[in-house]
This record gives sequence, structure tokens and C-alpha cells, in this order.
Amino acid sequence: MPTPEELDRIHIVLVRARNPNNIGAAARAMHDFGLRHLRVVNDYTVPFESARSAVDASEVLADAVACATLAEAIADCTLVVGTTAVGERDLQHPLLPLPKAAPSILAELRRNTGPNSAPGRVALLFGSEKTGLSNDELSHCNFLLTIPMQQREGERHLSLNLGQAVAVCLYEISRTPAQPVPAHPDIPSLPVPEAPKQREADPISGELDRLAQLIEETMEAVNYTTRGMRSANGEALRVLLRRLMPNDADLRRMMGLFRRILWQLKRPHDKF
Amino acid sequence: MPTPEELDRIHIVLVRARNPNNIGAAARAMHDFGLRHLRVVNDYTVPFESARSAVDASEVLADAVACATLAEAIADCTLVVGTTAVGERDLQHPLLPLPKAAPSILAELRRNTGPNSAPGRVALLFGSEKTGLSNDELSHCNFLLTIPMQQREGERHLSLNLGQAVAVCLYEISRTPAQPVPAHPDIPSLPVPEAPKQREADPISGELDRLAQLIEETMEAVNYTTRGMRSANGEALRVLLRRLMPNDADLRRMMGLFRRILWQLKRPHDKF
Repeated sequence: MPTPEELDRIHIVLVRARNPNNIGAAARAMHDFGLRHLRVVNDYTVPFESARSAVDASEVLADAVACATLAEAIADCTLVVGTTAVGERDLQHPLLPLPKAAPSILAELRRNTGPNSAPGRVALLFGSEKTGLSNDELSHCNFLLTIPMQQREGERHLSLNLGQAVAVCLYEISRTPAQPVPAHPDIPSLPVPEAPKQREADPISGELDRLAQLIEETMEAVNYTTRGMRSANGEALRVLLRRLMPNDADLRRMMGLFRRILWQLKRPHDKF
Repeated sequence: MPTPEELDRIHIVLVRARNPNNIGAAARAMHDFGLRHLRVVNDYTVPFESARSAVDASEVLADAVACATLAEAIADCTLVVGTTAVGERDLQHPLLPLPKAAPSILAELRRNTGPNSAPGRVALLFGSEKTGLSNDELSHCNFLLTIPMQQREGERHLSLNLGQAVAVCLYEISRTPAQPVPAHPDIPSLPVPEAPKQREADPISGELDRLAQLIEETMEAVNYTTRGMRSANGEALRVLLRRLMPNDADLRRMMGLFRRILWQLKRPHDKF
């Protein structure tokens, strides 16, 4: 069972949620399982304003933060986990059933991510009621989790509503035993324990975005990618960087190399 | 994980539920976790008539049975389990946290209850949204279960809504391992074998070396590294690539990008 301090490092991020009742139900589940930090991403007037006025809306809702973009909502997190109902699309991410995902989430909350001993921060993403998370939104994730179901053959696929999905995920996280459990081997990220020398800090999501941008710029500078392919490649690149999980030193090295390449490419050669 | 036949012997009983949306959400959770038998107890016109008309209402709702009394709803069951939020009243029943209650429920479903080998049937009771189960209703129960929560000290008590509570209970029952496991929540569940999913192959060491070489060549071409630092950097690069563990597709993508960068850098610019 995670400690209150650990639970404070989990951010529930509702992306494009449309129904204030669902936002209210998600906040309620958070309150019940001891979480505090709700972030709501919407590109229009955030519907949780009306959820806030609902009776029994908890302190969680009062303190919820509205973000204009998903990148902003997860910028300070070291692990980003998307939730998905399987069978929807071809997934490019590792997909873990919830009972296996929860120990990885807890391990991240307990992981020392760098020299100043900052522990990991986790974002748990839930998509809109109708469409779930888009491919672009999924590209920000390190891995995906799904709630295992047992629908009967031949029956329609229905998924849990948003409030139910949040409640089930938080229940599982909160029931996970206190003993550190080895992270699932299919997630390349969760760090191979290295020799106990000084460790480099892990970059947060916003830093990975900056590296991705730089690489995209380089790709464009060398015509590696046509303008039309850019958004698809950008998405793939975000997925790649999150799956690889470079640490801070790796990131600096890669940023340095790509800056240098760009500088070299942009030198006015024809003046020689 | 219970079999479909076992799940068919669980009856979800909603007692005095008032909100058709909650009844619909409960039915949806039942559908998702493979249950079929919903019974609704009300002493007035049953509100699930309007829930039935809701979009996406599942087959569960269509087959739901309205009962005039709780006794009627549970008459054919061998084990009756009530759900409760603790702290509400003095309980006269054994109270189990959900992770401990689920194995007992499964054991009953598998128990040979008599000479004609009929296995057990379980009723799982949920009370009204406002008041929960009354003492009279609790008196029909063999034991009670509660969903463990971690509300912060000094914060108001809120409970999950009805749809959330049903979803969490059914999730726990459905995640409980098939092998009888001692009913202790601190014992992590047995690993559920996953469906083999398509993974990209991991590159072999020689392929990583070729990528490392290509990156080194690029570094040199842009004077990112002095000749003296080359061997140190080469080693760091090999370590880096192995730590990041790119898969085959990543590798091809990276090779392609660096080949392109090199080609672009080596173009005879001064001829223009």
C-alpha cells in the first residue's frame, strides 16, 4: 500500500473528458484512495467548472489544475502511463494488464531518479469517454495499461465509464503490497539497476519533448522526412524516446550532438 | 480468474438503488467482467425500466429481474455477501476487506454444496446510494466486505458511487487467481500468463555496434568530438546503446537518420 507521500506523486490526467459527472466521479475515487493531484486537459472551457459545483465534490476537484495541452500536464513527470481498452488500435507501446502495471507504477514512485534524490512522479492518463486517448496522446506514454475484462464471446464491447476506470485503477494501485516488486521485464525503461555509482537524473517529460523537437529539426534539415510525414514521425519519435528512457546525461549528450549537427548543416558553405 | 460458469453463479443485487444511471453503470461493469445476473430490489416502480432504455445498456440490463423483497432476490443463493463503507454503524458481522473477501467468494462458487453436487451460488448486495444497506438487509448476509480506502486524516468521508463500487468488486473477483490462494492480501497474486504479443525483435550486439560506428562517424564529421576523445566516446556510446535497448525498428530508424545526415554533410557544397 503506497504511503500518502507516494500517492501525492501520482497525477491523474483526464484528457478531453466531456461529462462533468465523470470528472466528479474520478475526483471522488481519487479522494477515496488518498490521491490529491488532478489535471484536466481540454482545448475548450474546462467542464470541471460545473463539476466543481456539484454536491460532495471533494477537495481534489477544488484543487484540480486545467492545462491547455497534454505536454504541459505531464511536463514534470518521470513516468507517463496511458490507459486503454484493448482491441481499439494497433499499439506501439508495451501493454500491461493492470495487476502487472501497478507494481511498475509503485516502483517508479519509490525510485531515486537522480543525484538530488528526487523520487519519480507518475502521470496516469485517461482519454475522452468516446474515443479514449488518441495516437498523438498515446505517443507521450512510456507504457499502456488495460483493465483485464472477460466479455463473453459474441457480445458487444462496452467499456467501463470514466469514473469506474479511475476507481478500478486506483483500487489496484492502493492494494499493491508495500514490498518493492520487480518491474515487469517487458518494460525496457524501468531501470536496470546499475552499479551503485552516482546516477544521472532521469529527464522529465518536457525535456524529452525538447530533444524530440531538435531531432525533428535535424531530420527536416537533412530532408530525412518530408513535411507531410512530419507529424507521423514526431509521434513515432516521442514514442521512441519514452520507450528508450534516456537519463539526463544521455539527453545532454544527444542534445549536444544534434545541436552540433544542425549548426554544421546551417553553416553558409557556399561562402568558402 | 473465475470461469464463465462460475461467474454465472454470482448474482449482483442492487437494493433500493434510486438512480437509473447508477443501475446502468453497474450493469455495464457486470457485462465487462463477464457476469449476467442482476437482481433489483425495490418496493416501488423499479427505476431500471428507465435505465433499460439508456444507450449502451447491456444484455445484463435487459435480463435483470425485479424483486419485491430482498429475501426473494437471494432465495437460491448459498452465500450472501453485503457491501458496506465502514464506520457507518456498529457491525455485527465479520467484515473482510475486498482482497480477502474475493477468495472466499470464489471458494463458495467452487464448493460442492450437497449430495447432488450443486456448486455454491453467491449474492453480492449493494445498498442504496444514500444509506447503504439497512440493518435489516445486513441481517441476511453471511459476511460483509468493504473496499479498503485511504482517506486523509481530517477529510470528509466520501464513498465511491454505486457504479464504481460494483466495478471495483467485480474487478477484484475477476483478478483473483484460479488456484485457491490463502486469503491474505499481502500475498501477490500468481502471475497470469499473458497472451503472446507481437514484439519487435531485439537487435543483436553486432547491429548495435554498426549503429554506434555510424554515430561516431557523424560526430567526427561535425567535429563534435576531438580525435583524442574518440575512444572514450565510442565506449560511452556502446554502453549507452545497450542500456537504451532499442529494438530492431528503432535501430533501422536511427541508422537511416544518421546515414542521411552523413550524406548531407559530405555533399560537395562548394560546387554550388
